[in-house]
Amino acid sequence: MMILAVDAMGGDNAPRAIVEGVIQYLGERPKADIEIRLVGDELKLRSYDIKDSRVTIVHAATVITGEDEPVRAIRRKKDSSLVVAANLVKTKEADALISAGNTGALMTAGLFVIGRIEGVDRPALAPTFPTRNGKGVVILDVGANPDAKAEHLLDYAIMGSVYAEQVRGIKQPKVGLLNIGSEAGKGNALTKETYPLLETAPIHFIGNVEAREAMSGDVDVIVTEGFAGNTLLKSTEGAASMIMGVMKEQFMSSFSSKIAALILKPKLKKMKQLLAYEEYGGAGLFGIAAPVIKAHGSSNAYAFSRALAQAEMMVEQHVVAKIIEAKTK
Amino acid sequence: MMILAVDAMGGDNAPRAIVEGVIQYLGERPKADIEIRLVGDELKLRSYDIKDSRVTIVHAATVITGEDEPVRAIRRKKDSSLVVAANLVKTKEADALISAGNTGALMTAGLFVIGRIEGVDRPALAPTFPTRNGKGVVILDVGANPDAKAEHLLDYAIMGSVYAEQVRGIKQPKVGLLNIGSEAGKGNALTKETYPLLETAPIHFIGNVEAREAMSGDVDVIVTEGFAGNTLLKSTEGAASMIMGVMKEQFMSSFSSKIAALILKPKLKKMKQLLAYEEYGGAGLFGIAAPVIKAHGSSNAYAFSRALAQAEMMVEQHVVAKIIEAKTK
Repeated sequence: MMILAVDAMGGDNAPRAIVEGVIQYLGERPKADIEIRLVGDELKLRSYDIKDSRVTIVHAATVITGEDEPVRAIRRKKDSSLVVAANLVKTKEADALISAGNTGALMTAGLFVIGRIEGVDRPALAPTFPTRNGKGVVILDVGANPDAKAEHLLDYAIMGSVYAEQVRGIKQPKVGLLNIGSEAGKGNALTKETYPLLETAPIHFIGNVEAREAMSGDVDVIVTEGFAGNTLLKSTEGAASMIMGVMKEQFMSSFSSKIAALILKPKLKKMKQLLAYEEYGGAGLFGIAAPVIKAHGSSNAYAFSRALAQAEMMVEQHVVAKIIEAKTK
Repeated sequence: MMILAVDAMGGDNAPRAIVEGVIQYLGERPKADIEIRLVGDELKLRSYDIKDSRVTIVHAATVITGEDEPVRAIRRKKDSSLVVAANLVKTKEADALISAGNTGALMTAGLFVIGRIEGVDRPALAPTFPTRNGKGVVILDVGANPDAKAEHLLDYAIMGSVYAEQVRGIKQPKVGLLNIGSEAGKGNALTKETYPLLETAPIHFIGNVEAREAMSGDVDVIVTEGFAGNTLLKSTEGAASMIMGVMKEQFMSSFSSKIAALILKPKLKKMKQLLAYEEYGGAGLFGIAAPVIKAHGSSNAYAFSRALAQAEMMVEQHVVAKIIEAKTK
């Protein structure tokens, strides 16, 4: 039996979207031997009148909000939904932790409550970006560790490769190093030091990848330090939101264009789906001794159900054990 | 009188687009006291039969291509259009250098042929990105210097601010530090060291800016080291190209959507214009003792004419002298 610990109070739409996500997830697996420990305000959570007997509510009196300073919040709010859920994993009462709340607090809880995989110095935050061919690309780190060293990037490459293979089902995933030029020898001191390490690592290393090609679908895992990875993530989001905004403005600017846009609505919807993050689940926090998933803060029920499925796959496929195995190769 | 040295052979559409850009630029300024030194293959350039007497052709036997290794090319190809044009600036026969060719080679020519501004350790490559409000944002460095120190970022802030004020006409330009969080104290070792330097610099520093907000129009100058800046630039381009590609595919996928897309054509064109880089000219190479402009490699005549206008403004407004002045404040 598998047990997932869910922070029911984290995220913009919590607890409703979280509860509905759990119900949706279990509903799609009527016979699965999975239990959910739903952690949060018991009274509120009971009010949803959850019928599935595989859900157990675990009370937590407080919540860590987006405004809380992560390290301080984890230390002081011992009775918060996140810390209580993390403790379930620490004490082996649960196999994985999923939260849509404060990212920094989740990373801190992973690091200080659950703990690192031995030999992995720095955990990495690893979302999966959409690609044109629908395959998706795992990018890590996007901000867990803003001052990474070459050895850390080597760990990221191994962890990302194991994840892409075991959870995303990609055989011999292609791993690239984010760089500012495609030739070997390009880049800054960090990428120059990392490149030869990746060449001899137990992965399928394809060399440097530029940010322009990140979502081409030609690469399955992109390795980078947290500052550049975060910049890649946020500038992609920013560009998408700007383009969509300008498009909407233009399409709404005259009567005939409004009509045309109405005709295109199903196509625009399909387009949005192709570019949607939630299909790929949340961001994994790799390097922690158990699967930890950060669902997007604005997750709706569907997005959260995808994050649960992702955690399930990580447990099922023994990703943590396989990372440890790959590291000792 | 002002003299601009133009590398006529650099860029994907050279020399045609360059020659036509020069003609267009001068055509819009029939009475301006400006001369163009058009540097390249004399025979080829004569074949365009340029009528404007303000254009002088300067022969250069070879060309530095995109495949040439920059430092080696500048050293060995002394008779290339780029090196000959750079020498015109070095010997004060011209006031500024404009090229759509190999970026690395142009940076190297700027650094080793023309030379740095005294006190500026590292030049920065500074394009202007489009913003939703049409104001544009200067971002530097996007890759001239991939291992920057805090003092370099301080120089970038001063140079970007002078440029935004003098050339782009923005009073008290708002300068932000690219970071992975908005609060002071966020980021990596470099941003933490840079932040207090910017606070006391002779600029209007508004604090940290995340990549997501880069094109919001709320900030006029964004300062960052070359690796993250290059990532910002290229991931924005990559996201835009992916979204436009998916949109085109969707819009062309059925008869009715094709018709609707046809109706929207003027709106889509307007949208493209709003997002176009060329309106803002090329990327300035700041920190060199004369204005040096890198026009986009794929520049057409119009884009190149904008880069010429940008160089003219930099000469006219004595940007180099004003950078030196600001640095001694």
